[in-house]
Amino acid sequence: MTMGNKLGAELLGTFWLVLGGCGSAVLAAKFGDGLGIGLLGVSLAFGLTVLTMAYAIGHISGCHLNPAVSVGLTMAGKFDKKELLPYIVAQTLGAILAAALLKFIASGDGGMVTGLASNGVGVHSPGGYNMMTGIVVEVVMTFMFLMIILGATSKKAPAGFAPIAIGLGLTLIHLISIPVTNTSVNPARSTGPALLEGGIALEQLWIFWLAPVVGAVVAGLVYKMTFKDA
Amino acid sequence: MTMGNKLGAELLGTFWLVLGGCGSAVLAAKFGDGLGIGLLGVSLAFGLTVLTMAYAIGHISGCHLNPAVSVGLTMAGKFDKKELLPYIVAQTLGAILAAALLKFIASGDGGMVTGLASNGVGVHSPGGYNMMTGIVVEVVMTFMFLMIILGATSKKAPAGFAPIAIGLGLTLIHLISIPVTNTSVNPARSTGPALLEGGIALEQLWIFWLAPVVGAVVAGLVYKMTFKDA
Amino acid sequence: MTMGNKLGAELLGTFWLVLGGCGSAVLAAKFGDGLGIGLLGVSLAFGLTVLTMAYAIGHISGCHLNPAVSVGLTMAGKFDKKELLPYIVAQTLGAILAAALLKFIASGDGGMVTGLASNGVGVHSPGGYNMMTGIVVEVVMTFMFLMIILGATSKKAPAGFAPIAIGLGLTLIHLISIPVTNTSVNPARSTGPALLEGGIALEQLWIFWLAPVVGAVVAGLVYKMTFKDA
Amino acid sequence: MTMGNKLGAELLGTFWLVLGGCGSAVLAAKFGDGLGIGLLGVSLAFGLTVLTMAYAIGHISGCHLNPAVSVGLTMAGKFDKKELLPYIVAQTLGAILAAALLKFIASGDGGMVTGLASNGVGVHSPGGYNMMTGIVVEVVMTFMFLMIILGATSKKAPAGFAPIAIGLGLTLIHLISIPVTNTSVNPARSTGPALLEGGIALEQLWIFWLAPVVGAVVAGLVYKMTFKDA
Repeated sequence: MTMGNKLGAELLGTFWLVLGGCGSAVLAAKFGDGLGIGLLGVSLAFGLTVLTMAYAIGHISGCHLNPAVSVGLTMAGKFDKKELLPYIVAQTLGAILAAALLKFIASGDGGMVTGLASNGVGVHSPGGYNMMTGIVVEVVMTFMFLMIILGATSKKAPAGFAPIAIGLGLTLIHLISIPVTNTSVNPARSTGPALLEGGIALEQLWIFWLAPVVGAVVAGLVYKMTFKDA
Repeated sequence: MTMGNKLGAELLGTFWLVLGGCGSAVLAAKFGDGLGIGLLGVSLAFGLTVLTMAYAIGHISGCHLNPAVSVGLTMAGKFDKKELLPYIVAQTLGAILAAALLKFIASGDGGMVTGLASNGVGVHSPGGYNMMTGIVVEVVMTFMFLMIILGATSKKAPAGFAPIAIGLGLTLIHLISIPVTNTSVNPARSTGPALLEGGIALEQLWIFWLAPVVGAVVAGLVYKMTFKDA
Repeated sequence: MTMGNKLGAELLGTFWLVLGGCGSAVLAAKFGDGLGIGLLGVSLAFGLTVLTMAYAIGHISGCHLNPAVSVGLTMAGKFDKKELLPYIVAQTLGAILAAALLKFIASGDGGMVTGLASNGVGVHSPGGYNMMTGIVVEVVMTFMFLMIILGATSKKAPAGFAPIAIGLGLTLIHLISIPVTNTSVNPARSTGPALLEGGIALEQLWIFWLAPVVGAVVAGLVYKMTFKDA
Repeated sequence: MTMGNKLGAELLGTFWLVLGGCGSAVLAAKFGDGLGIGLLGVSLAFGLTVLTMAYAIGHISGCHLNPAVSVGLTMAGKFDKKELLPYIVAQTLGAILAAALLKFIASGDGGMVTGLASNGVGVHSPGGYNMMTGIVVEVVMTFMFLMIILGATSKKAPAGFAPIAIGLGLTLIHLISIPVTNTSVNPARSTGPALLEGGIALEQLWIFWLAPVVGAVVAGLVYKMTFKDA
């Protein structure tokens, strides 16, 4: 397994996460005649990007697809810190490419669809939640996401099922928190749409690097101190 | 595996069950523009809290997350009765913490969202079902939940799949019974929101300790007498 | 494994299939304020009754829960014909008990909910489909259901996954055919509601014994002749 | 395993893909009273046709059910090119039979339901997306579908889970792209409805042979050059 293989897999996988998750939100959530997939369909789509990629490339790169996940795994002692920065670059690049492609696709209906499903708080929160609430939600949700990942990939957990637990865990996180921040828990996922949208999405982008990374760091340390040998 | 590990896992897991299940109900079920996840999304969220935690902490504590489950397993001879009370305390504490966090989050949109998805009958039943019906439904649903748990964790059942059967079993139970009692089958899940809401939810809380425990006790005894050696 | 164990498991499992599938349809499908689970939620509920029971009691009775399945397996040479009649009696009894309980539950909201999700064609078809179409759909859907069951339980298929394939296969069948006949593919499932509802549901009940059994017999013979040794 | 067994399995499986996927779209997507399954239900149905068949006939034919998949696997060196043409013929025949049966079923409600869920761009795109966008989407989605298939069936991926990853991967693809082209990624799936509908669906059919095959060829070559030995 070369480093190129791993980085290519992370780029491809994060591309898929943003294209599938944000793509379903932008193109299909509000589709007409009551046929739209709504927040439930978008939640399912985000989770399935991870589930599918975890089976497809998990054996290549570990399928992080998320800088916060890579940081959390490093903190827990489960990922080599020398690979951390290249992973984060590949993930962010994949997310940006997906957002660019999505912008192209969304323009293909004559401009009726707008936005790229960026994350936000306050006036940019889907349900109008304030910044403090948004930060707390992102920290807690990323913390729980890492606890699921660290637990389900433990050697004592049933082998082969981790992609189901982790993918559907991301679906669950979206079912709870889309109204608050449009759900990030993933700085790369936030960066792609923010760069292409600009404006308030870009101004608030720091929140979606800070909060998920904080949640992931705490999770990595807590897991290491408590459950690691359990 | 220390007792502290187990109790920490039960607290964390029940925290997740209430935050995810009640959280999706409070924040996302009725979201505007027809985008809300509805009872189907809430049912899926409750089930996925258990599915994800069962893979993440099942090997640590058994992932009961529910006093009725701990009681039913004790009755069936599958759980040490000396651990029963500490488990119930940890589960209830986790549920209360989640309800408190959810109350904080829900206040972050300026108070538009109300309630914490407490359980109820009569005037507090989502569909206006009377108390007797609510009690029967909670007893039967908890009985069936325990039969699924006891059967799917049998040594003769396929290894590794129990979290899928049990988690999606809880989804199924919600698909049927949210209209009747808002679905408890779990005294800890009922206690968190009831303590934070107070009022009628607290007055009716005894129902959601009594009925699930009765259903679980009967299931434990029936399973022990019939299928245990099957 | 005694015969009593097996028949008890089939009765319990078919009780769960009708209580969960028809129960979600009657209680939750049309729930107010746009929160109802709709045909998608009902389809998921029917499938999850089978998925959960297949993991819980599959190792006890094989988890047929359906006279057409028992007949089809007998035709394919995978089930002992001496057990066929007792299985069908236990399944039908479980379905009737579930329909009776559901009638009691549905009356608990003061009579606002009506019907028990019986099957029908013509004026009793949800979408107004005529009898010939209904019969063709039931024959084809049951045929495909048996092909999935026979294939997924083959020794050459991956072990342990059959409950997922079969349960979600039943979900898929409902996603297609609820509008046509309210989806039976299971004479026991049709009999419970029809006996409790009476009227046109009872008059048309013969269709939902005949068509599923024909589909299952053909599937059993086709599978035996073609794929059995594949 | 005879060639007849394999071709019979591919025909049956592609029949099921079109009957289940297009059938749910035609019969249930817009069902009245807000009960319809919408794009989310249709996406789930398409995915479950593949999931169920992959467990049922995967060990017989490999369960391609899709000329683009057969081409992509051939390009990646995972399928014998001598079997390619017979597979494509069997798949296309199965799809046509399913479309014919669906046309018969849909006529059973007195003609209220119209169309057979054919694919299209421009004026025949569900969301009015232009041809270039439709072609790009079909190429990219088929490319990603093949990457999931090739990765999840790798010897290094967990055994037995590929049908879940691939089936739910097809669900995900539909969650994103139904609004653009009604989602093909499968020339056989497009051919059945187009032949029975005629008109614009038939005129645009070339797009849904060309674009999926291009995406699959590129995926096969990319996978062979990069991840094959990873």
